[in-house]
Amino acid sequence: MKRTKLVLALAALLVLAGCGNLKGSGTGTTANTANSKGVQTTGQTGEDNYTGVIENGRYKTSAARGLTVTQTDNMLNVQSIETGLTNLSKTEFPTDKYLLQEGQYLKKSTLLVQSSDNSTPSTGWLARKSKENPEGLNPEDNNKKEPNTRNPLYLQQIVEQDYVSQTNNKSLTLGGVSIALGMNSVDYYQKETYGAEFKTEISDAQLLEQGKQMANTVLARLRQRADLKNVPIIIGIYKQAPKDSLVGGTFVATSTNKGGSQKVAKWTTVNQKNQVLPTINDEKAVNSGDSDAFSNFKTQIQSFFPNLSGVVAQAHYDNNQLTGMNITVNTQFYGETEITSFTQYIAQAAGRYLPRNVPININIMSTQGMQAYVARSRGGKDFSTHVFGSY
Amino acid sequence: MKRTKLVLALAALLVLAGCGNLKGSGTGTTANTANSKGVQTTGQTGEDNYTGVIENGRYKTSAARGLTVTQTDNMLNVQSIETGLTNLSKTEFPTDKYLLQEGQYLKKSTLLVQSSDNSTPSTGWLARKSKENPEGLNPEDNNKKEPNTRNPLYLQQIVEQDYVSQTNNKSLTLGGVSIALGMNSVDYYQKETYGAEFKTEISDAQLLEQGKQMANTVLARLRQRADLKNVPIIIGIYKQAPKDSLVGGTFVATSTNKGGSQKVAKWTTVNQKNQVLPTINDEKAVNSGDSDAFSNFKTQIQSFFPNLSGVVAQAHYDNNQLTGMNITVNTQFYGETEITSFTQYIAQAAGRYLPRNVPININIMSTQGMQAYVARSRGGKDFSTHVFGSY
Repeated sequence: MKRTKLVLALAALLVLAGCGNLKGSGTGTTANTANSKGVQTTGQTGEDNYTGVIENGRYKTSAARGLTVTQTDNMLNVQSIETGLTNLSKTEFPTDKYLLQEGQYLKKSTLLVQSSDNSTPSTGWLARKSKENPEGLNPEDNNKKEPNTRNPLYLQQIVEQDYVSQTNNKSLTLGGVSIALGMNSVDYYQKETYGAEFKTEISDAQLLEQGKQMANTVLARLRQRADLKNVPIIIGIYKQAPKDSLVGGTFVATSTNKGGSQKVAKWTTVNQKNQVLPTINDEKAVNSGDSDAFSNFKTQIQSFFPNLSGVVAQAHYDNNQLTGMNITVNTQFYGETEITSFTQYIAQAAGRYLPRNVPININIMSTQGMQAYVARSRGGKDFSTHVFGSY
Repeated sequence: MKRTKLVLALAALLVLAGCGNLKGSGTGTTANTANSKGVQTTGQTGEDNYTGVIENGRYKTSAARGLTVTQTDNMLNVQSIETGLTNLSKTEFPTDKYLLQEGQYLKKSTLLVQSSDNSTPSTGWLARKSKENPEGLNPEDNNKKEPNTRNPLYLQQIVEQDYVSQTNNKSLTLGGVSIALGMNSVDYYQKETYGAEFKTEISDAQLLEQGKQMANTVLARLRQRADLKNVPIIIGIYKQAPKDSLVGGTFVATSTNKGGSQKVAKWTTVNQKNQVLPTINDEKAVNSGDSDAFSNFKTQIQSFFPNLSGVVAQAHYDNNQLTGMNITVNTQFYGETEITSFTQYIAQAAGRYLPRNVPININIMSTQGMQAYVARSRGGKDFSTHVFGSY
């Protein structure tokens, strides 16, 4: 467990180090070096997935690509907020009618501009409100330093996704926009530059209240743009996981706002949970049946193989119902034959012990990276296996 | 390219560091901690794969698990020698009749015993022949230090695989044994401990001659054991790739030796080639059609995505006919949506540009590890995709 955490943390650091300096990360979308002109699509890979948009031969990356408010975020949040927002959007923008285009309306310059040497405060929506930054959505600095008296940063990131439809295989029409507000459950801060790290914990009630207020502000601002005035805008409130978490955060509320609306009329509660299995520190399992099933699977495969160092799962629940599981098996291998046999065995054990009727992915890792994986898709009956070979 | 090499080299080092100290690596196969007694199997995952053997609830690891003669070997050799030997064995031991059991007859103590502090020379088959080590298959040390006058280590590793059949769903009967002799094309050495590295290059003719001689010795020795006296023994000669290679080595000759035979009667030439694409240093493509197809694919996906840092392929040829391709795409991603779109696009481009009718795997990597993969199996028409998600 400790080790997995460390690896994840390192991986996150590596990537975030790449994102942190906002200058020059992402080359923009206007270059036109490819042969093909006009709009293409990426091709769909299943009914349940959106097709992506290619313009002039290049993928249309997000206008705010690689942007979060601080470098300390858990990479799992960055992954799950996007996937979650896509899922929230599927009812309003069905995958067979709409293409997914990365957010084009909220630019980096709108969301966050950091001075390169931290000498002046950041500006933009994600920054604190101040005389110099009236648009800041996070509260003003009250100059207090203690966890419970300071004003924390409530808003960590904003993700925008655009849903477009294609007419006559040519031009794109905007169908609507989805926005996720990534709200901190814990705000990490330093009292002085390079100093020790402190944290302010934010209650679910506070998080939700702040998120709802910000959602109204964001909605009103987006409506000021002519092209966003009359399209549906989905706004979801996402609760960020703490940075040492082995699962990402979850959405807690969502709203679908009809064209023209200036204020969120109705919020829908989203009941999602992510849990790491096996549970630690006497944490109660969301569903003890799932937890027991996983334990049996873990015992079964650990007896099979010497030197098996870790078997950990992420379980995802919607309305307290298991809707998916990602399992990581870490071990040391000595050859292809072992990996192949172990993979076959895991597929067998997974079919016998793990919960039925939910999608399950099992990644089999060594210090060299991923060696094999075993998966069952949504609605699938059997597990399929893949061993990553080499010539 | 440089970077990929470095990463591979590092990965190899990590693993080999684990193998180097031969004491305690591998816990043996006699423990019986699991519930299930007797022989089980791992379950098969395709007609083309062998089923593995489980005894008393534990996987039967090789008796010489994690063993190579020096720590400097290219990890790709360790992978491809096993896969290659399995493939060479399929004619004599069809996958629907035989199970694959990791080698149980050649023990570590037979193959190589190193003194823990390098104070005395190693002993065993993989070591040099000497008064103390009459069984050594590598030539005596002639005390010369120059690349062309010293006696190089010709033999780098020996891999054993046992093919067994199961009668009445119970006991196992040995059907035969396959042996691979991993022969150095380059022998790396130091003139003094911790000194600079030098190398002796070994010609294909020398490699083959030495391998054939050693094969006769090995065969005769195996026949001395009562249980191996009358079973077929396959012996293959494998040419190890140099340690900076981005592809593993290949088999150059094979022999199937009937029960009782004390000497190899007939060698069959194996014509295999591995090539890295794009080719560098004016290396000639094994097949320019395949090489062009790959270039077109590479150009197509590089125009699509900013910051695409590397697209490299391993192409495998049997009798100058392409029989498989592994492609690695390295890039920096900023989110799930990008990865999903890019994966869809790669599947589309792969179907359009890459050679048909051969199995192809495309691994999509970031600094965080594998993000997605796209694959077409042997005989498959379409590419399937998988994006590794997280909750």
